[in-house]
Amino acid sequence: MAPARTTDVPATGAEARSRSRTNTWDAPTCGIAPGYLQANLIVLPSRLAKDFVLLCTRNPVPCPLLATSSRPGDFSNFISYIPGVPNAQIAKDFDVRKDAPRYNVYRDGSLTESAIVDVDKYWSDDHVACLIGCSYSFENALHNANLTPPHVLHGRNIPMYRTTLPLLPAGVFQSSTLVVSMRMYKAADVEVVRDITRPYVTTHGEPIAWGWNGMRDLGIADINRPDWGDVPVNGDGESVVQDQAALVPIFWGCGVTPQEAVMRAKIPGIAIGHAPGYMVVLDIKEDDVLRRSN
Amino acid sequence: MAPARTTDVPATGAEARSRSRTNTWDAPTCGIAPGYLQANLIVLPSRLAKDFVLLCTRNPVPCPLLATSSRPGDFSNFISYIPGVPNAQIAKDFDVRKDAPRYNVYRDGSLTESAIVDVDKYWSDDHVACLIGCSYSFENALHNANLTPPHVLHGRNIPMYRTTLPLLPAGVFQSSTLVVSMRMYKAADVEVVRDITRPYVTTHGEPIAWGWNGMRDLGIADINRPDWGDVPVNGDGESVVQDQAALVPIFWGCGVTPQEAVMRAKIPGIAIGHAPGYMVVLDIKEDDVLRRSN
Repeated sequence: MAPARTTDVPATGAEARSRSRTNTWDAPTCGIAPGYLQANLIVLPSRLAKDFVLLCTRNPVPCPLLATSSRPGDFSNFISYIPGVPNAQIAKDFDVRKDAPRYNVYRDGSLTESAIVDVDKYWSDDHVACLIGCSYSFENALHNANLTPPHVLHGRNIPMYRTTLPLLPAGVFQSSTLVVSMRMYKAADVEVVRDITRPYVTTHGEPIAWGWNGMRDLGIADINRPDWGDVPVNGDGESVVQDQAALVPIFWGCGVTPQEAVMRAKIPGIAIGHAPGYMVVLDIKEDDVLRRSN
Repeated sequence: MAPARTTDVPATGAEARSRSRTNTWDAPTCGIAPGYLQANLIVLPSRLAKDFVLLCTRNPVPCPLLATSSRPGDFSNFISYIPGVPNAQIAKDFDVRKDAPRYNVYRDGSLTESAIVDVDKYWSDDHVACLIGCSYSFENALHNANLTPPHVLHGRNIPMYRTTLPLLPAGVFQSSTLVVSMRMYKAADVEVVRDITRPYVTTHGEPIAWGWNGMRDLGIADINRPDWGDVPVNGDGESVVQDQAALVPIFWGCGVTPQEAVMRAKIPGIAIGHAPGYMVVLDIKEDDVLRRSN
């Protein structure tokens, strides 16, 4: 799918996990294992997991919950939250402590380890891992409509931004805000991009805002200063000029939101996330979860 | 439950609907038919119903979808969206055009008829009715904890407010904002009120904001100027003094939000809602839908 990465990329979820575990794949996962569902990760102490599941229930656009550990301490077996997808189909031979390419670690809500390759030494018998849908899942559909996102075309990590849009609180998770991913398109393509991504309800679905005014409404001041990922480029790989007539930013809910929630709520103890852009790739196929809008 | 209404109030959902239909119950439904689920109503042209269902999926706190017409034009038989609740249990001998005490009618997104008793003459074979959870469903639980909301104590309609908090858009439903209901409590009771209402996930669940700063964050300027319902009172039935130390407002998602969405999106054609506070009472018991947080 990604022209910059047509050779030697993992072809399946199992291969992506295996190569992440052996540290022979060490790059953002955008465009790899086409057709396989990718997932954001957040790992929490068990007594906070119930509130986090409720946070997902109340904020399903940024936090579409796919699965959680079967019980505290279980890094291999997961319970599916996706209607019609059995537990056994999530990921075989799974070790969520090693099977993402890179991880972040938080202590008492502060980032203490950034983009490390494994987190088994931070994992405890009390940890619960939660997998959240990822908007990479609809990039194939955009590509097939000749609307390949610029970061895919140029092999870059997707730009992600903090916003001022609040999450609806759930238990200990208060005062948090949405994180968004961004893709640049011609203004005339906004409606078709909305239509293509709308059915992907378990992977953020249609955009939450678009256009330069939409960007300002989200509290984003400068498109060239993302909080995570690479600085955006246009389809020609050139830097993005704000307020230019030809292109507008389109924003989707982003599964980095749970890591922002951990920081905002100053969650006590050790929490773990994937490094933004470096996802866990599952055995579930995108078609298994696509709820077609007809 | 409500001291001001202990006599001659409908005891069941069936009685509430029957008396609404015969216009022998003509008041807000707060506190009537204790234990029965009450529902907000929005009726839309069929081609917009799909986008509305998606709006509910993306914004489940203000818009917890309970049921929709089985097919366009059906005002009697509904499909349940509540896990474990069969279609037949929603409401027997149901006529959604007559079984709420009062209705609002919108044309092209503008309110044209306010608080009328029946809407059968506005109903068409193309209309789809959608039932949305109502926060009255947790008022029994608050009452049982000696935290009876002031509007219940004094037989008043609940105060409801527009906010500046955006809904996440879905198809034609854009630029909408949350509507909230409000109950006054002592600041020291906020956490127990949050805990009591948290499990009611299909009926708005825990509050989305609280306190005087929370009110200002929602864009509400004056607690004594609600957009729907009655001006609030405190537990003694006295008017509420803003910024007083003893009491704080607590805000929940409100099922009037869909009517605000109809107006904001200027939905073409005829749409119908209940008159705020004058709900449809169902046959479903609150216990049937309560997802306990244990």
